Amino acid sequence: MLYLIGLGLGDAKDITVKGLEVVRRCSRVYLEAYTSILTVGKEVLEEFYGRKLILADREEVEQEADNILKDADISDVAFLVVGDPFGATTHSDLILRATKLGISYRVIHNASIMNAVGCCGLQLSPSLLLLIITDMIWLYVRSDVSQEQDRGTCLGFPWTGAAGISQQAGPRFIELYKFGETVSIVFWTDTWRPESFFDKVKKNRQNGMHTLCLLDIKVKEQSLENLIKGRKIYEPPRYMSVNQAAQQLLEIVQNQRIRGEEPAVTEKTLCVGLARVGAEDQKVAAGTLQQMCAVDLGGPLHSLIITGDNMHPLEMEMLSLFSIPENSSESC
Amino acid sequence: MLYLIGLGLGDAKDITVKGLEVVRRCSRVYLEAYTSILTVGKEVLEEFYGRKLILADREEVEQEADNILKDADISDVAFLVVGDPFGATTHSDLILRATKLGISYRVIHNASIMNAVGCCGLQLSPSLLLLIITDMIWLYVRSDVSQEQDRGTCLGFPWTGAAGISQQAGPRFIELYKFGETVSIVFWTDTWRPESFFDKVKKNRQNGMHTLCLLDIKVKEQSLENLIKGRKIYEPPRYMSVNQAAQQLLEIVQNQRIRGEEPAVTEKTLCVGLARVGAEDQKVAAGTLQQMCAVDLGGPLHSLIITGDNMHPLEMEMLSLFSIPENSSESC
Repeated sequence: MLYLIGLGLGDAKDITVKGLEVVRRCSRVYLEAYTSILTVGKEVLEEFYGRKLILADREEVEQEADNILKDADISDVAFLVVGDPFGATTHSDLILRATKLGISYRVIHNASIMNAVGCCGLQLSPSLLLLIITDMIWLYVRSDVSQEQDRGTCLGFPWTGAAGISQQAGPRFIELYKFGETVSIVFWTDTWRPESFFDKVKKNRQNGMHTLCLLDIKVKEQSLENLIKGRKIYEPPRYMSVNQAAQQLLEIVQNQRIRGEEPAVTEKTLCVGLARVGAEDQKVAAGTLQQMCAVDLGGPLHSLIITGDNMHPLEMEMLSLFSIPENSSESC
Repeated sequence: MLYLIGLGLGDAKDITVKGLEVVRRCSRVYLEAYTSILTVGKEVLEEFYGRKLILADREEVEQEADNILKDADISDVAFLVVGDPFGATTHSDLILRATKLGISYRVIHNASIMNAVGCCGLQLSPSLLLLIITDMIWLYVRSDVSQEQDRGTCLGFPWTGAAGISQQAGPRFIELYKFGETVSIVFWTDTWRPESFFDKVKKNRQNGMHTLCLLDIKVKEQSLENLIKGRKIYEPPRYMSVNQAAQQLLEIVQNQRIRGEEPAVTEKTLCVGLARVGAEDQKVAAGTLQQMCAVDLGGPLHSLIITGDNMHPLEMEMLSLFSIPENSSESC
């Protein structure tokens, strides 16, 4: 059996009990080492798991998938992934290869940035809850309601009234689908400065939705010289900070103004910077895009949220827990 | 300290090692019992954790938050949530109350349906990986590339060529932002048959994106009679199945046709039904919307994905692992 096991986002103890049991009994344990990082090193994991880990970078997973899968039909092999095996990167290729070789697989899920980002209080997904009581009273009172009076996918929350949203005659419903399409922000180079992801941010904002921006990671990068000479010497890993992402975003805003376009995001747009989500020293900071250029969130990994308009009062209240003091704002 | 602890999606062992340690040392442990269900009961959890669990339904969390938070400034209290504390429901209200009372809180994340749904092979989020080598060679070969040649947020995948996507002159980039806004499908009643969420599915499909549909859960529902008479007698919990969701969707399709509209989804649209994601007996089935009406996925919880057009060959290949045999199609 091939096990794809999520390690979560923090440290060695963020593996699930089930995941740990599997790791301890597998004949070989690989650690995916190319898309993300835990806040602790391989050695710490090895000590806690009581197992040697074989590092597998992207190249190896591609080229040596058959080695990883060797004997997985007769013994158990674990492939560990920071976050969730299906969070920010797919491991479909490994699964498909296993399936072709007649090897069964199982996935042991864990948290990924795709859901943990909700920790800042911005709504990640619709809630399935309806305020059943007010709902039913309303249906009773208004039993003549026609099907045309479609309240759609609006969902009810008890604090809607308390939080200052005007109550309708009907149940206290409010839309809470707040995250739109996720985007990536990549490191710009002298010659490659992509701006097109900005259209997606714009579309999300036009629809009143937040945008989660995953920030670039560069691992096993070779200098052009080393690449050409075929030397397998790698540059130190680089992880984009919220500051760098904000600076690139502000440059795009400037470029749009120069081209006479109305930018969908400005220096004053409310953003949320997140660092090391799920770890003990997690940091969240809410402030303007301008403030994001200077906020100090410490080491990687960072993520950035560009908020949509029309935030819910509860979202605002949660964000206020993380707001950057006014006077700490510095210009980029 | 108030701990909000995600339990993951499967059984008792899907809690993280860190979460379990906290549960075992807290003075009181609450189990949120209103938005989701684990595939095992409270007693199984209690036995594995070695702790008594206090069930807290939505009403109690609203009305008795102060009881939950009692003494949390001087002792540790755990609040357990199926999935992730910030997955499908927010617990911002509890956090805000705690903060106002000067009580610190910590979140121990876990998998939620919002990321685990990627297990079917559909791309959940952009990958942060660029094909560094081809990328750099390309930059070298085409060092005259102008900034206008914006390759945007396209991301590179090594199997792009192999999977039959025509290679460009530049690096093998491909868009992989495939999930749009999440929607909820609620149980229709005789008088309340919302269709408006369908617009979001349409918008997602127009943008080539998949739609995750979270399906309705009804717990602690009272009959109108019991409600009016103030009797706290509750109906058995109800969980919407993929079959029910598909039937409602097909009815909307029919209604749109009757109104002369071109429906964004038809009987033949490729969908993915998921049941008990993350559990041992998880089931995934890929087929047409028509097939979703009859597919047997077993007990709750179910989710449904309506795919976007222009699927990636790797997504198609993964889905083929779960495809419903042609002859098993039955009409609703």
